[in-house]
Amino acid sequence: MFGVTILGNNSALPAYDRHPTSQVVTLDQYQFLIDCGEGTQMQLARYKIRRSRINHIFISHMHGDHYFGLPGLITSMGLLGRDTDLHLYAPPLIKPIIDLMLSAADTQFGYTLHFHPLESEGMLLDDAKFSVECFRVFHRIECWGFIFREKKKPRRINKQAIGSYQLPTGYFERLKMGEDVITETGEVVLNEEVTLPNAPAKSYAFCGDTLFNPIVAEKVKGVSLLYHETTYLKGLEDRAHLRFHSTTTQAAEIAVRANAENLLIGHFSSKYEVLDEFLQEAKDVFPATSLAIEGVTYIIQ
Amino acid sequence: MFGVTILGNNSALPAYDRHPTSQVVTLDQYQFLIDCGEGTQMQLARYKIRRSRINHIFISHMHGDHYFGLPGLITSMGLLGRDTDLHLYAPPLIKPIIDLMLSAADTQFGYTLHFHPLESEGMLLDDAKFSVECFRVFHRIECWGFIFREKKKPRRINKQAIGSYQLPTGYFERLKMGEDVITETGEVVLNEEVTLPNAPAKSYAFCGDTLFNPIVAEKVKGVSLLYHETTYLKGLEDRAHLRFHSTTTQAAEIAVRANAENLLIGHFSSKYEVLDEFLQEAKDVFPATSLAIEGVTYIIQ
Repeated sequence: MFGVTILGNNSALPAYDRHPTSQVVTLDQYQFLIDCGEGTQMQLARYKIRRSRINHIFISHMHGDHYFGLPGLITSMGLLGRDTDLHLYAPPLIKPIIDLMLSAADTQFGYTLHFHPLESEGMLLDDAKFSVECFRVFHRIECWGFIFREKKKPRRINKQAIGSYQLPTGYFERLKMGEDVITETGEVVLNEEVTLPNAPAKSYAFCGDTLFNPIVAEKVKGVSLLYHETTYLKGLEDRAHLRFHSTTTQAAEIAVRANAENLLIGHFSSKYEVLDEFLQEAKDVFPATSLAIEGVTYIIQ
Repeated sequence: MFGVTILGNNSALPAYDRHPTSQVVTLDQYQFLIDCGEGTQMQLARYKIRRSRINHIFISHMHGDHYFGLPGLITSMGLLGRDTDLHLYAPPLIKPIIDLMLSAADTQFGYTLHFHPLESEGMLLDDAKFSVECFRVFHRIECWGFIFREKKKPRRINKQAIGSYQLPTGYFERLKMGEDVITETGEVVLNEEVTLPNAPAKSYAFCGDTLFNPIVAEKVKGVSLLYHETTYLKGLEDRAHLRFHSTTTQAAEIAVRANAENLLIGHFSSKYEVLDEFLQEAKDVFPATSLAIEGVTYIIQ
């Protein structure tokens, strides 16, 4: 399973039981936390996501609605007896803040917190099954987007087609990787004759707080699901620009330019109680749009 | 009205929709916030307490469940356009943490945050109508209790008794303050003959995280309402002592020794889902006990 669960979909001021930004990306057995606004640990409990399964946390920037829940979460992990390493990818300024808080509380964790400062665009995590990259977005202070990519999946053996070759299964791994093989009798078996392509590798891009900038579309080109902030409805482009945020149509325009397959919108201003117009306005530009609703998991197809 | 509204009644790990410590003391038109665990700003909204009415915040100690909601609350106050001064009474270590957070967010408030470091026992606020003092309690790190006292109320004029003197009303203010007066004709009017005592001044003491120590009872002698933590049920005195916390019977024993009129208990460990036994055990020792329930306002009689 590859999906993203929304824990907070509101902008800076919590309102209408909408919470500040936080999301959990699930990729098979892995769970990654993106941003950690105040109350994230309570939202994890509310939606029955186990804190202990999260080993990697990504923080986009140093505005409080994106990380004020982090000290509480990592402290609770310690109180719950965690002993697994935790990796934090965040702006460098977060480290002295956490260090001061821990020292003031006279607290030591029973686990190791590895701090990976975000300083340049590129690969953060490169596993056999997935990768995570960061890229710059355009906010009032330095701010990062993240892309989660499945690794390309192996091809599937076409059992019907391979039957005529009577190949030993020892050849299968190379065939799955896309190679042609030569049998012991010297016969060439073309890969495309005996294998089927697997589902294409999927990807998820998170663009938290950012003003409208086509450079963002270049960074997230071709993603399966793009999350892009929409703090305001259309018509408020000037206000959005002044505050380094985006409107519905601007987010949808990024999805169009990126040739994304699907768009997820969130970070709604607390000036809006009802969200229907957000969805309609974005869909008018990019039909495959969904509203980010707290507690809902969006499967990346 | 003099009362306390509970926003969080749980100990460090939020559980069962119980939140970390926070309370609002209301004294006529004043509202004071004591402690500010994660999610306090959401709890204020949930119970319809206006952030803008809070001008004084008291933080007992530097464990996260007592202040991790503070950065979010004071940031939201700024975003909401607050321009009234805010006074923060807290351990000195909180200031560099807040300063670093504001600097990392490149945020300036439109209001002035006055920081009053807690360094010695004594008066924090001395107004015409009330006072607030702090005193040391006994926790793993430095920790403070607070007492809110109404000022002694003026005596009331006994209209029937004063009739015979035909005193001009200009004398009344001095009589209300308890003085005798001498009329222009040289007649002495004894205060107790023409005035009635008013209701006695009430008081509220907050003893957050502390182990059992009879010195605490001395500090809160005779209060109208004592809040004392009860992290554990009785029988767990050893664990409570090790973790610098108290049990139900220990809290009730402090109320007895202090000759308090009423006791309010909270800071329940997340190991307990049902709280009935907390109330019963404390009542067995001190009958005038109430459980601190979130969203409930306890009037100080």
